Amino acid sequence: MNNSKIRVGIAGVTGYTGEELVKILSRHEGVEMTYVSGREDRAEKIQDIFPYLLGTLDLACNAFSLEEAIEKTDVVFLALPHTNSMQYAPELLKAGKKVIDVSADYRLQNTAEYEKFYNVPHTDSANLKQAVYGLPELHRKAIAKATLIANPGCYPTGAILALAPGLTAGTFDVDSIQIDAKSGVTGAGRKASKDLLFSEVNESLKAYKLFEHQHVPEIDQELSVVTGKKISVVFVPHLIAINRGILSTIYVKLAKKADTASLIADYQKFYKDEPFVKVYPDGKLPEIKSVVHTNFCHIGMKVNEEKNLAVIVSVIDNLGKGAAGQAVQNMNIMCGFGEQTGL
Amino acid sequence: MNNSKIRVGIAGVTGYTGEELVKILSRHEGVEMTYVSGREDRAEKIQDIFPYLLGTLDLACNAFSLEEAIEKTDVVFLALPHTNSMQYAPELLKAGKKVIDVSADYRLQNTAEYEKFYNVPHTDSANLKQAVYGLPELHRKAIAKATLIANPGCYPTGAILALAPGLTAGTFDVDSIQIDAKSGVTGAGRKASKDLLFSEVNESLKAYKLFEHQHVPEIDQELSVVTGKKISVVFVPHLIAINRGILSTIYVKLAKKADTASLIADYQKFYKDEPFVKVYPDGKLPEIKSVVHTNFCHIGMKVNEEKNLAVIVSVIDNLGKGAAGQAVQNMNIMCGFGEQTGL
Amino acid sequence: MNNSKIRVGIAGVTGYTGEELVKILSRHEGVEMTYVSGREDRAEKIQDIFPYLLGTLDLACNAFSLEEAIEKTDVVFLALPHTNSMQYAPELLKAGKKVIDVSADYRLQNTAEYEKFYNVPHTDSANLKQAVYGLPELHRKAIAKATLIANPGCYPTGAILALAPGLTAGTFDVDSIQIDAKSGVTGAGRKASKDLLFSEVNESLKAYKLFEHQHVPEIDQELSVVTGKKISVVFVPHLIAINRGILSTIYVKLAKKADTASLIADYQKFYKDEPFVKVYPDGKLPEIKSVVHTNFCHIGMKVNEEKNLAVIVSVIDNLGKGAAGQAVQNMNIMCGFGEQTGL
Amino acid sequence: MNNSKIRVGIAGVTGYTGEELVKILSRHEGVEMTYVSGREDRAEKIQDIFPYLLGTLDLACNAFSLEEAIEKTDVVFLALPHTNSMQYAPELLKAGKKVIDVSADYRLQNTAEYEKFYNVPHTDSANLKQAVYGLPELHRKAIAKATLIANPGCYPTGAILALAPGLTAGTFDVDSIQIDAKSGVTGAGRKASKDLLFSEVNESLKAYKLFEHQHVPEIDQELSVVTGKKISVVFVPHLIAINRGILSTIYVKLAKKADTASLIADYQKFYKDEPFVKVYPDGKLPEIKSVVHTNFCHIGMKVNEEKNLAVIVSVIDNLGKGAAGQAVQNMNIMCGFGEQTGL
Repeated sequence: MNNSKIRVGIAGVTGYTGEELVKILSRHEGVEMTYVSGREDRAEKIQDIFPYLLGTLDLACNAFSLEEAIEKTDVVFLALPHTNSMQYAPELLKAGKKVIDVSADYRLQNTAEYEKFYNVPHTDSANLKQAVYGLPELHRKAIAKATLIANPGCYPTGAILALAPGLTAGTFDVDSIQIDAKSGVTGAGRKASKDLLFSEVNESLKAYKLFEHQHVPEIDQELSVVTGKKISVVFVPHLIAINRGILSTIYVKLAKKADTASLIADYQKFYKDEPFVKVYPDGKLPEIKSVVHTNFCHIGMKVNEEKNLAVIVSVIDNLGKGAAGQAVQNMNIMCGFGEQTGL
Repeated sequence: MNNSKIRVGIAGVTGYTGEELVKILSRHEGVEMTYVSGREDRAEKIQDIFPYLLGTLDLACNAFSLEEAIEKTDVVFLALPHTNSMQYAPELLKAGKKVIDVSADYRLQNTAEYEKFYNVPHTDSANLKQAVYGLPELHRKAIAKATLIANPGCYPTGAILALAPGLTAGTFDVDSIQIDAKSGVTGAGRKASKDLLFSEVNESLKAYKLFEHQHVPEIDQELSVVTGKKISVVFVPHLIAINRGILSTIYVKLAKKADTASLIADYQKFYKDEPFVKVYPDGKLPEIKSVVHTNFCHIGMKVNEEKNLAVIVSVIDNLGKGAAGQAVQNMNIMCGFGEQTGL
Repeated sequence: MNNSKIRVGIAGVTGYTGEELVKILSRHEGVEMTYVSGREDRAEKIQDIFPYLLGTLDLACNAFSLEEAIEKTDVVFLALPHTNSMQYAPELLKAGKKVIDVSADYRLQNTAEYEKFYNVPHTDSANLKQAVYGLPELHRKAIAKATLIANPGCYPTGAILALAPGLTAGTFDVDSIQIDAKSGVTGAGRKASKDLLFSEVNESLKAYKLFEHQHVPEIDQELSVVTGKKISVVFVPHLIAINRGILSTIYVKLAKKADTASLIADYQKFYKDEPFVKVYPDGKLPEIKSVVHTNFCHIGMKVNEEKNLAVIVSVIDNLGKGAAGQAVQNMNIMCGFGEQTGL
Repeated sequence: MNNSKIRVGIAGVTGYTGEELVKILSRHEGVEMTYVSGREDRAEKIQDIFPYLLGTLDLACNAFSLEEAIEKTDVVFLALPHTNSMQYAPELLKAGKKVIDVSADYRLQNTAEYEKFYNVPHTDSANLKQAVYGLPELHRKAIAKATLIANPGCYPTGAILALAPGLTAGTFDVDSIQIDAKSGVTGAGRKASKDLLFSEVNESLKAYKLFEHQHVPEIDQELSVVTGKKISVVFVPHLIAINRGILSTIYVKLAKKADTASLIADYQKFYKDEPFVKVYPDGKLPEIKSVVHTNFCHIGMKVNEEKNLAVIVSVIDNLGKGAAGQAVQNMNIMCGFGEQTGL
């Protein structure tokens, strides 16, 4: 064992995000995975759950234990269903751990909104104040100093990155944002549900949770931070028959004159130093396959001058930049690693 | 051979629409398939092209021959690439055949628009005037008397059916229509193109032809007919990794007060006698899988009163109601069969 | 209501086979669906479960009731999990109903085998004796007289049809049969299981239940009937990432001289009057897509004379000829309808 | 530019294997990509072909030029259609380059077999003698000294690794090998062919090239090397509707007594020091998803003692261990890098 490595733990390793964290972190030269927890109902070895870890990672995988997590780790990823994270985070923080929560528990600063969209009371408003929304492109400095990261939701990551430059430049009519988002099935988590069975999803497509998806207040909150105005978007998510990836097609009216070239130039400038955002030239549009299994967000756009409208298309891997990849990017920033390490 | 049956021919049987016509017409009790044509480059038996027809349908399949088509058929489906249809239709009409053209050649009454979007001159404006746009829900009476049908495009079918009732009732702001459409891959035809290879399309998603898809002028034309106003929609198509089906998510501002219940009531009334359109109650939304391998269009909707916006979702099978199914529905109307025969 | 139509009921309409039965029977001119039952836990309308039935079929769908089934039907399809069928069949038979059981309860004449492979006691050996194995190509006459049909399993249907002609002709070494079968995911049923989630199955492939699948004794039993010898096959099933369809690749040593042409000739002769079996000429091999959404079985084959080996490939739709389609074919035979009616 | 890095070139970067090589090598710390060639018909930038390389790799991509390749590289990967490789390899070797050929040109030591299965004359028998079959698990020492590597075919890699331990131990009847293989669609290459269109492959499955696939002589040759006997296998490949991955189900009779545990023990011993082969314990079987996007081969097995038969299941990624991954593994061995570098 290399004592100079940072010891990381993952709570909830059996979900898709937990598994992706295992894959990324097992290739990360600066950390050592020292603790994982899994299903509540049985004790296993992680290599029995994921046979491809055989000979690579030999760790017990039991129900989450605060004591063990505190004893064995420096940084803890909470890849748990919402409400579970805020149950464990306070003790972990008290014990001096850095906590990266990939659930929704610390994303909404307004607990009333949390309670409305998640249908449960928020039980840790004390730590909510210090939680930093972990989108490095907007909050890198705060992330570097944070001990509690609210890792962004998958839909919000794709939508906010696609809108921030135009909103910052004052190019967009802030009241006209319509987001038509399409997500692969891992976005819904690894839970036994008839609606997510292969033959229910395959060869089909549906819209769901029209206007009422739990990611709406998260997008609204962050775009309001960007613009300094109260933003309320129209958001329609769709479930598409692929494993991974989100494509967001965003329709927005122009508040000032712009054409495709000028808008792209603004975006390229905004993201010029970002290691994980690529802006496509010449009205070219990105496809999901270009970012799957990466931590990238690719963005393309086209202005319809006659209609005074811009359409922005962004793609991310919902398990990469939309969850585990971004969580590791946040860890890299918090721990002083190169931001691209392991990604 | 049953002399009382109508003799039908299909030009272009090797494409997806042609093949679907064969499947539907071979189960249709009122017709006999007497002529098919296929690839230009070789003479075959149709059962060699589609081995599942072995023992079911024994027809030669050569390059299209006007003489044979005129001699052997009463009704001809032209499932050909655009420009080919207007090459053959004039002679077929002159010979007294009923012609159902599933290409785009007779859809746009404005030949300048045709030439702009299809990049070729229009060579049969003479017959264009008498061509009837074959959307039975809007033009049933004209279809019954027609000898030349312009069978609607797949995207336009889904979009127009989703918008017509609200536009007719004056509920929608006609300048605010945004259509985010998602189509399965058969919509692109059976042509050897790298972009349509399995591994290029599978596990991905992309938007394409932003603002400039050739179905835009067709949608604009037909919605202008419906409203009596000049309509110009925003249309963004996407290619999804499924074989068949189109889901259109349509965003439109309200021109007068409406809620989800009142809007649905209008739609249910508009389509109450239609055999192939179903309007979903209670804000429920349709999925592609419910209409695949059928001639149905299913429509659901939800009003966001706060934002003064309706979202309409329609689904069709692009090869069913979006092409071959609708073509047979048109034939049924033209020939006096029950409209649902064989469908 | 048309009193001349036969009244049919479907127990277990919410499973894939039950739903397929609804689709087929709603197009069948000789029957009227008068009773369906569904999930144990709630009372619904069938059009709430399958919204595409809206306006087409208006039936209550509650937990199964013997009284209602007896009162309202002439023929009952039991599309239930095994053990449920043998719970209800005795009373239905006593009441004079024809029963078509698509579960495994009446397939194995040897109850010890049933108990070994299904891990439950068999509770209706009384009716087991009169149950007819519903493979029309082998047992048509017995089916016509039967009141209780054991509808064959999906894998056995594909395997037995692929082997029967060669075994009957004495061409195959009966001790050398190896069946490598690949099934779409609906074959596993519509049950909420993590292993069947979209993202678990998609873009993957696995073999399962090596040598111990519950369809092994069923294949062995029926091939023993065909040959008059005790047959024991090697059977390895695989789960493939498609909704519907089974392809079986069968390896068998030759017991007497044969080549591709002679073997095909034997098969064509064996099936020459069968409406639902097609034998491909010239060593051509069938693909799953040719039979999906049909009741057909297509068979191709090739002999490797140097190795004294034949490879037979058969394809069926596991929900068609492998379940619901074959069940309706059996009903047609039992009730005196044309065998292809509705199929 | 880091002068201590090895300069690598890739000929044929626009194919699936070429693209995968780009992805792997761009993360490889010991090399610098200095030359790529692509389509014959046009000059491009590689980031125009693969937009995700924007900002990452800026290289011209023209038709292959021997002069440029010789000037700019130390190691050349030939990811070209067969016959092209043997056209360029002689000059590259003469110029002192290390050549890793991922085509079939240097795999078969018997040129008559090559000409029979590839239908073209072999034009470089001179270099054929020194070509080393690049399967590190069997030929690591020879690879280390080689300048010309014949990188193994995808099917042979999965089949040979699954059979070598049992054949070496004398456990298997060498005349009884039957390989039922299933491959994802990238295995067929990125060529515009109707048979490989999304909607032709999706939701289907077929067997092809029964007994006559061009990988048969390659498997036979290498298993003959392993056993010292003339081996001739039965090989039936299938095309499955996934992007990447091969699962081989191999049936083999036992030549001496063995059970599942003893056979697994032999395999574990055989591969105990191999970084890229995992043998599953306890009769567990591998799934394709466990190895996709990796250079691993996973193997599971089960003995049917009653039938004196073993079934071995192996999985690889056809673009990983089956092509580009293995090619990089070979480069690592040839160039003295750690064998797992970049993989």
